[in-house]
Amino acid sequence: MTAVPGSPPTGRAKLADVAKLAGVSVGTASKALSGSGRMRPETRQRVLDAVAALDFRPNQHAQSLHTGRSWTVGLMTTDGIGRFSTPVLLGAEDALGAGKISVLLCDTRGDAIREQHHLSNLMDRRVDGIIVTGRRTDPRPPLKGIEPIPTVYALSPSTDPQDISVVSDDRSGARLAVEHLMATGRTRIAHITGPAHHAAAQDRARHTADLLDQASLPLSTGRVHFGEWSEAWGRRAAEAVLRTAPDTDAFFCGNDQIARGVADTLREKGLDVPGQVAIVGYDNWDIMALASRPPLTTIDTDLGEIGRQAALRLLDAIGAEPEPGLHTVPCRLVVREST
Amino acid sequence: MTAVPGSPPTGRAKLADVAKLAGVSVGTASKALSGSGRMRPETRQRVLDAVAALDFRPNQHAQSLHTGRSWTVGLMTTDGIGRFSTPVLLGAEDALGAGKISVLLCDTRGDAIREQHHLSNLMDRRVDGIIVTGRRTDPRPPLKGIEPIPTVYALSPSTDPQDISVVSDDRSGARLAVEHLMATGRTRIAHITGPAHHAAAQDRARHTADLLDQASLPLSTGRVHFGEWSEAWGRRAAEAVLRTAPDTDAFFCGNDQIARGVADTLREKGLDVPGQVAIVGYDNWDIMALASRPPLTTIDTDLGEIGRQAALRLLDAIGAEPEPGLHTVPCRLVVREST
Repeated sequence: MTAVPGSPPTGRAKLADVAKLAGVSVGTASKALSGSGRMRPETRQRVLDAVAALDFRPNQHAQSLHTGRSWTVGLMTTDGIGRFSTPVLLGAEDALGAGKISVLLCDTRGDAIREQHHLSNLMDRRVDGIIVTGRRTDPRPPLKGIEPIPTVYALSPSTDPQDISVVSDDRSGARLAVEHLMATGRTRIAHITGPAHHAAAQDRARHTADLLDQASLPLSTGRVHFGEWSEAWGRRAAEAVLRTAPDTDAFFCGNDQIARGVADTLREKGLDVPGQVAIVGYDNWDIMALASRPPLTTIDTDLGEIGRQAALRLLDAIGAEPEPGLHTVPCRLVVREST
Repeated sequence: MTAVPGSPPTGRAKLADVAKLAGVSVGTASKALSGSGRMRPETRQRVLDAVAALDFRPNQHAQSLHTGRSWTVGLMTTDGIGRFSTPVLLGAEDALGAGKISVLLCDTRGDAIREQHHLSNLMDRRVDGIIVTGRRTDPRPPLKGIEPIPTVYALSPSTDPQDISVVSDDRSGARLAVEHLMATGRTRIAHITGPAHHAAAQDRARHTADLLDQASLPLSTGRVHFGEWSEAWGRRAAEAVLRTAPDTDAFFCGNDQIARGVADTLREKGLDVPGQVAIVGYDNWDIMALASRPPLTTIDTDLGEIGRQAALRLLDAIGAEPEPGLHTVPCRLVVREST
């Protein structure tokens, strides 16, 4: 199954074949297909019958020249297709594919030269729009040097408030976790999270402290424990928290890996989860949340929905109805055995 | 930043602008760019200067009509972009992007209707070729109803031996694991793996038994332990193995999740890893292998290389030099603290 380079795939009916079978000129066949130009209904029907008989497919490149639209969208991810950007990409692909828009995948791996290479390629291909996504929730500079092509930033927002960005609502995530812990009677809550220079860690920690403050509850250790997004950090930090504040009755963790590490430390110390201590994670990363002993109650950031909404907002922008600004997608609480 | 639907992006130089600036006809400008037709070198140079001055980009749709090639390849994944297909897709994207080939992403989610929808779309877009990838190593039926478009199956081979497939060499993986364990003095080796109806589990188990047989060593429990690809199964199976054959001195596991479960059970039983018992996993899934206590020696299947080789073989096929058949990519042994 091969094709000669530089030649069209063989075996496909051409417009000329359709015209010949219908007994009309190529020009008439073209008009019949595009719906433009006047002709007798019988003539148009003969052309459509020939199209069906030959399984003729109009050439999209020719159609794109005619309409000025390519019906393609560039999906640019900045750090490989990772755990976070994959569901966003799939959500966007799903929403776009429901129409007849195809997705050009570009992986820049955070490299500026790769990004320019891909951008230039996307412009050459006359994409109708671009969705940019990344791993982190930190704002990123807008794409440089693009011509006026509608662009939506998903998960990682643009630093330019005039751009369209769709992000997770970290405030709603922290609220769901804290309110769930308070509703189940916990009052001595510790917060262990990732690096302080990551927006995801900083934002969730700030909202957590605010919410506890509103309920006149201090953090059980008096401070947020910033560290790494790893199980090892969760294990170490849980030890430290229990030394400082042995009466801690709940851990709210910045991601599921940290929460799983906390669960391991508590089990090895013989503490009952959730009998004595409750644990809430973040992300609802199934492979971590379900393998944890016990399985984790966690915050689902609905990454697929972020991708879908980014795609729908991109379609609005392509349709000349852009809504600039930061749009948030709410989180969901997933309750399992750790609370 | 918006565009009017149905009209080309504004602000871009057109070929007519280039022709006007160069003081030539549009036909002459076109010939100067395509390198076809004779003209004075000064004339060609004036056109190229105008191209540079206006930052003119030739329309790829027009070029595709001319050459019959779209310089795009469809990347079709059958089960979402999962842990296994993602590295394959990235490897392929890397190899294709080094040329000027763009990648159209299609996620069929194993759904036949979605697959047909995507295939039809890819054909309308005149892709030069298709790469098909999936989660499992089990052979899959070839794509149906495609016209003669070069196609390569990556990771999940085609059942048709005349198709081009690129897969992981499970035999080399089993050999690396077993030889490493024997070289470090282990003689009572247990094998715990996934479901018996998965090719990955079946193949690795068969090769493991063959290799031990050649060394006149039986499996420590006399049989392969088929189950699930999960940590929970690894924990349960390790208990069973130690009951049946307490002198087992090594576990070779069908994936890293199982191996991590085995490591947890051994630690909780107070057995020293690797002092008393060694563990080898499979996949080199960093998030599992590194979080395990101790970190896992494992088999790296080099999924990115499978994607790259699939892309290169697709380019050969597009260039009319296909090599049908099953092509394997060897595994690598990654030694960490569990052996």
